[in-house]
Amino acid sequence: MVSVVNLAVGKELLIGRTVNSNALWIGGRLYRMGTMLDRVLTVTDSLDEISSGLNELLSRRPDFVIVVGGLGPTPDDMTLKGIARGLGVRLRFDEAALRLIKEHLESVGRTFEATPARKKMATLPEGGVPLANQVGTAPGVRLTAGSSVIFCLPGVPREMRDIFSNFAEKEIRDKLGVMHISKVTMKLTGIYEASLAPSIAEAFKMHPEAYIKSHPRGLKGGVPTLELDITVVSKKAAKARATYAELSEFLSRRVADLGGSIASKRESVK
Amino acid sequence: MVSVVNLAVGKELLIGRTVNSNALWIGGRLYRMGTMLDRVLTVTDSLDEISSGLNELLSRRPDFVIVVGGLGPTPDDMTLKGIARGLGVRLRFDEAALRLIKEHLESVGRTFEATPARKKMATLPEGGVPLANQVGTAPGVRLTAGSSVIFCLPGVPREMRDIFSNFAEKEIRDKLGVMHISKVTMKLTGIYEASLAPSIAEAFKMHPEAYIKSHPRGLKGGVPTLELDITVVSKKAAKARATYAELSEFLSRRVADLGGSIASKRESVK
Repeated sequence: MVSVVNLAVGKELLIGRTVNSNALWIGGRLYRMGTMLDRVLTVTDSLDEISSGLNELLSRRPDFVIVVGGLGPTPDDMTLKGIARGLGVRLRFDEAALRLIKEHLESVGRTFEATPARKKMATLPEGGVPLANQVGTAPGVRLTAGSSVIFCLPGVPREMRDIFSNFAEKEIRDKLGVMHISKVTMKLTGIYEASLAPSIAEAFKMHPEAYIKSHPRGLKGGVPTLELDITVVSKKAAKARATYAELSEFLSRRVADLGGSIASKRESVK
Repeated sequence: MVSVVNLAVGKELLIGRTVNSNALWIGGRLYRMGTMLDRVLTVTDSLDEISSGLNELLSRRPDFVIVVGGLGPTPDDMTLKGIARGLGVRLRFDEAALRLIKEHLESVGRTFEATPARKKMATLPEGGVPLANQVGTAPGVRLTAGSSVIFCLPGVPREMRDIFSNFAEKEIRDKLGVMHISKVTMKLTGIYEASLAPSIAEAFKMHPEAYIKSHPRGLKGGVPTLELDITVVSKKAAKARATYAELSEFLSRRVADLGGSIASKRESVK
């Protein structure tokens, strides 16, 4: 298993201004690749918080740390300084990073001057490699700390997604190898979560490696509704399929036995 | 300042299934009260992750820890067991908690039996006090650890909000005292974030306690757009108003000087 954690930086995430849709996107992307986020730690724009947050995550020796937010030109964009402090390295101005900024601005028809704000975005923790941002100004940064690879990405969603897709994803996939995923989401009616719980517990005992989760969706016209997720991930396609088939048949039968029914299902078997 | 942190529990938050709207809601609610979330740590449904996550947050000695998710009847709802492990206390069956479950079920016209799933929801870490859930089955739980108060709330948003509003909010407000908040969100056009950055840095130096943040919103018809937030919180109403007025006038003037304009603003001065 490849371990990936996310350090989300930004006061706007902590004061009800912005929902953390980046963590949702990264988690979903990793899950479809056959792994997941182990943790997300959200901290405010402060050097202490960024550096201590990074070190808390690194202490668990993850394969990858995805740092999101705080790469922009404003004074509260202090992620790279916080990362440098956390790693105990100096910041240094990076000509290649400034070149990426220049190329981006010229590609969208803007003139380039090496303003202090732009030089700030090109000032990286020592050892950092700038990563091209195709849809915005601030480059991403790749760093290493021990056996962990750190990707710093902008918080603007489309910029984050661009750099994640072009750089982080490939490296995570290479480490992960080919993974096979079979899964279903069933919409159930006429059954309470508490009634299905013992059957889910049994299914867990059969295959502790599977992801099986029910989500209560309230009463609809007096009838209880639930969603049930079953996901099986394996390096072996036949194993993912067989485990998935066993669990989905077992739980479907139990739902029927308990008087519930499957209103619809969205299935993907590979 | 009252410090509040959030431990969010649930694999669905880490695999792209569910966006963490609870953290958004809690952060916004606290911010309107005059404080904020210091951190959000999201972990998966695992005893090790819940207990170590709790202890990492407690090591910072927050006034309040809001734990959200994993109080339901299914086997992957293991938050209370994880919290007990983290605090080094035993779990014990709580008659008062089972009574709350019974009262809730009867209030919605369902019959009550003390099933294993319901007894599980009434099994609390030693020292825990059950909190009535007016809109769902699983009670919340209040605990203390050193000088920190821990509230465990269900992950279903309306249940979380119900218990937060009825129990956690009052206790946080009491600790906080009366706070006064003046704030604005301005929509700016014709100005790049990088151009405004030095002025924001100056404003920060004038009042480091204020929250001043720009959010780039891309080009609209070739013209750059930005949002600018200014928020000032103080125990003294006059101070909040005066600081707010100074910052908002200073930055509005700078926007005009730099050739930008304020397309609209949403202001709240108290």
